[in-house]
Amino acid sequence: MNFKQLQKDINIQFKNEDLLKQAFMHTSYVNEHREQQLEDNERLEFLGDAVLELAVSQYLYREYKHMSEGELTKFRANIVCEPSLEKFAKDLNLNEFLLLGKGEEKSGGRERPSLLADAYEALIGAIYLDQGFDQVITFLSDFMYPKIEPGAFSHAMDYKTQLQELVQQDGKQVQYKIVDEIGPAHNRKFVADVFVGSEKKGKGTGRTKKEAEQEAAQKALKGM
Amino acid sequence: MNFKQLQKDINIQFKNEDLLKQAFMHTSYVNEHREQQLEDNERLEFLGDAVLELAVSQYLYREYKHMSEGELTKFRANIVCEPSLEKFAKDLNLNEFLLLGKGEEKSGGRERPSLLADAYEALIGAIYLDQGFDQVITFLSDFMYPKIEPGAFSHAMDYKTQLQELVQQDGKQVQYKIVDEIGPAHNRKFVADVFVGSEKKGKGTGRTKKEAEQEAAQKALKGM
Repeated sequence: MNFKQLQKDINIQFKNEDLLKQAFMHTSYVNEHREQQLEDNERLEFLGDAVLELAVSQYLYREYKHMSEGELTKFRANIVCEPSLEKFAKDLNLNEFLLLGKGEEKSGGRERPSLLADAYEALIGAIYLDQGFDQVITFLSDFMYPKIEPGAFSHAMDYKTQLQELVQQDGKQVQYKIVDEIGPAHNRKFVADVFVGSEKKGKGTGRTKKEAEQEAAQKALKGM
Repeated sequence: MNFKQLQKDINIQFKNEDLLKQAFMHTSYVNEHREQQLEDNERLEFLGDAVLELAVSQYLYREYKHMSEGELTKFRANIVCEPSLEKFAKDLNLNEFLLLGKGEEKSGGRERPSLLADAYEALIGAIYLDQGFDQVITFLSDFMYPKIEPGAFSHAMDYKTQLQELVQQDGKQVQYKIVDEIGPAHNRKFVADVFVGSEKKGKGTGRTKKEAEQEAAQKALKGM
């Protein structure tokens, strides 16, 4: 566990490194080291969850100006949820840093999605306390927001339907064109353009035509 | 509807007064004034809800250092919920400012708890966008946090039980003493002291002995 290296990896130098360490401290570890009077990461997780909700909310509020409150809420729920947070945590190899009790370690706690998601939220809480909200935004801009962009959540969000509904209000039509195919047959990528009326509004790529169109629709929505 | 007066009442001068107005704009009003291309308050409510969650979370995190994540979560849910937000909204007479369609007005929308709670969250969102997070904290410090303090949520939080549980870990005993009664019989207030071991840890007042003891326990918890 090299917390110096972690700080380099995430571009943050903690004033209070104990706070960083606490973010990874599972209650099972604290219970096995009672003499050290440690505090587990649960309260940090409580705080970090709220920090993350706001950071993601304001990002979506600003980036997706056309989205209704209901759509924003659904989108946010798909980002601030265990499977997504586990993924963000694994991308940073946070599982290596978890401080677990022996029993928890043996039973596979290090790979448990809930522990990883909790640690991610606790880390956000620790950054917030030690560095402030702006640094959280910088962290998320480096390591999370870009993963929201390229259709990573398109399983949850049907952008084509959204674009269709938005455009109907103005009595216009949406059209998609596959304008290119890239790469060899076994690793083909498609490129789609989307037109609203006669105007080109977005371009997307994907491993299927539908994926490419979804991304194009998402880009169009962001520009409207 | 005097939005100038409202700004005086809440000690905030908006840079963009349209944003303030939008916080009170119910979708029924927007639907009746389509020619004006207004935006209702729902997206602001989405954002404001997240701002409020963080503001309340960090307040509780800092003020109640002994509380577990589970207790903090329960406490927060009792503050950021429709009945509480309705109360905070009414304390500021926000119902006067709601912009409603005619049907909504006739059917009593102005007194509907959900509309008031939504407007309160939207107002928080508007303050956040126009003024930033620190101004939200100032606003809540003026108009909300003080109402969290004096046992307003004691129906939900059993502080005596919490104190008992905390103190038991150290093998100490909790004792309450009613040390004063204030006011005439029909408007009597009780004053309770709480002792942990031999040390006085808190003083509380309330309209019943139990209320006074609950407040004393809460004060003791805050100091521990």
